[in-house]
Amino acid sequence: MSKTENPTAAMLAIGDELLSGRTKDKNIAHLAETLTLAGIDLKEVRIVGDEQSAIVEAVNALRTRYTYVFTSGGIGGTHDDITADSISAAFSLQCIQNQTAMALLAAHYERRGVEFTESRKRMARTPESAELIVNPVSVAPGFKVENVHVMAGVPQIFEAMLDKIMPTLKGGQPVISETIHCPYGEGDIGEPLAAIQKAHPDVSIGSYPRFSSDGFYTQLVVRGREEGDIAAAAADIHQMLEKLAKTKA
Amino acid sequence: MSKTENPTAAMLAIGDELLSGRTKDKNIAHLAETLTLAGIDLKEVRIVGDEQSAIVEAVNALRTRYTYVFTSGGIGGTHDDITADSISAAFSLQCIQNQTAMALLAAHYERRGVEFTESRKRMARTPESAELIVNPVSVAPGFKVENVHVMAGVPQIFEAMLDKIMPTLKGGQPVISETIHCPYGEGDIGEPLAAIQKAHPDVSIGSYPRFSSDGFYTQLVVRGREEGDIAAAAADIHQMLEKLAKTKA
Repeated sequence: MSKTENPTAAMLAIGDELLSGRTKDKNIAHLAETLTLAGIDLKEVRIVGDEQSAIVEAVNALRTRYTYVFTSGGIGGTHDDITADSISAAFSLQCIQNQTAMALLAAHYERRGVEFTESRKRMARTPESAELIVNPVSVAPGFKVENVHVMAGVPQIFEAMLDKIMPTLKGGQPVISETIHCPYGEGDIGEPLAAIQKAHPDVSIGSYPRFSSDGFYTQLVVRGREEGDIAAAAADIHQMLEKLAKTKA
Repeated sequence: MSKTENPTAAMLAIGDELLSGRTKDKNIAHLAETLTLAGIDLKEVRIVGDEQSAIVEAVNALRTRYTYVFTSGGIGGTHDDITADSISAAFSLQCIQNQTAMALLAAHYERRGVEFTESRKRMARTPESAELIVNPVSVAPGFKVENVHVMAGVPQIFEAMLDKIMPTLKGGQPVISETIHCPYGEGDIGEPLAAIQKAHPDVSIGSYPRFSSDGFYTQLVVRGREEGDIAAAAADIHQMLEKLAKTKA
């Protein structure tokens, strides 16, 4: 499907609560949609718990393989927030109290008349040489080291930080798509659909079985980078469905 | 937190649609909850696209490391369903037309008076020597090779297949938990909470910042295997909150 290669990305969601089922992740789908619109291909997602060795291993596997890495979670001020330490370890950097972050947080708490506790100071920790990512919701910043963008797990903050990052990324040609409702199950369309895919190598045709009380139906999605390619494949699919409707009638 | 080691697990969700944001995964959270109740520790989740090399690499990384692996997606009958081929490749097994699966599907389609097309026959493909996983929703089975359980991506079918698998797994001691609402942000509780965690090494205390229109609050979750351990840590947390309430008043 690719004519020129788009930048690639991976996500690492961090948190025991995601693996125990307590918290349902909302950030993966949001990141996936945002990157798709920007022409950046999300290729892999991993979820690991609050365990430094697991985070280090995943970050190092992903950052060497993809253009961008995005992480969520573990940058708060309590004992179970170990993302800053883990990212530092992954890059063999010292984990320091970032002075810009300290100043931002000190001013924020002073304005609100709130004590700047040790826990709150923990939120200013980053790997040395990290760049900060602005947090317009609650001040405590995310940070960036090379191609790794470290963000909060709270969805409102994750989304706000991502908004700040997106304009700094090099995007590609956005993937556009057309969804076609198919009232038949995959068993009825598999062969003609495979032939259509073969005839249209510049698009990627996905087939997604859905289940309702009336039985199975299928969503067909044609993805590509050029309107014309998509329209041509979609026309063939509509023709296939008309032909099938006659056989079924 | 572990007194005896629980069995471990990983999940691999397969599908381009999960990485493009078109489909929001529902199976990860369901698996996480189910395994937690059974005392099996879900340690890692990966999501990859419909690409054989990515699936093979992930399955081989996960199956050697964890007691159980569960996959979702890619076992339908269309050209983009490549999970059976990929799992076969991961185990260096031939991908065959499983005769038991063929018989099940043939009987099913005959009863319904539906043609048993080549696409439908694709759904009977498994690695040689695989055991089938019963699909009570739509017949086309999942399969198991060694410790890898291959299931459908459609949530109703994934859940039904998992119900069939669970009694065959060796569980551990279930993790139990108590959730305590904390009306303060993490900055107020970080230090005393870290001290409580240190004093109760047999439980794991998680702190989850939440954001509402009134500002931040925190959910504190005490997890462990023994009621007594959890009650003792929870009592200390309640005492901490009462003390904090007095300082704030």
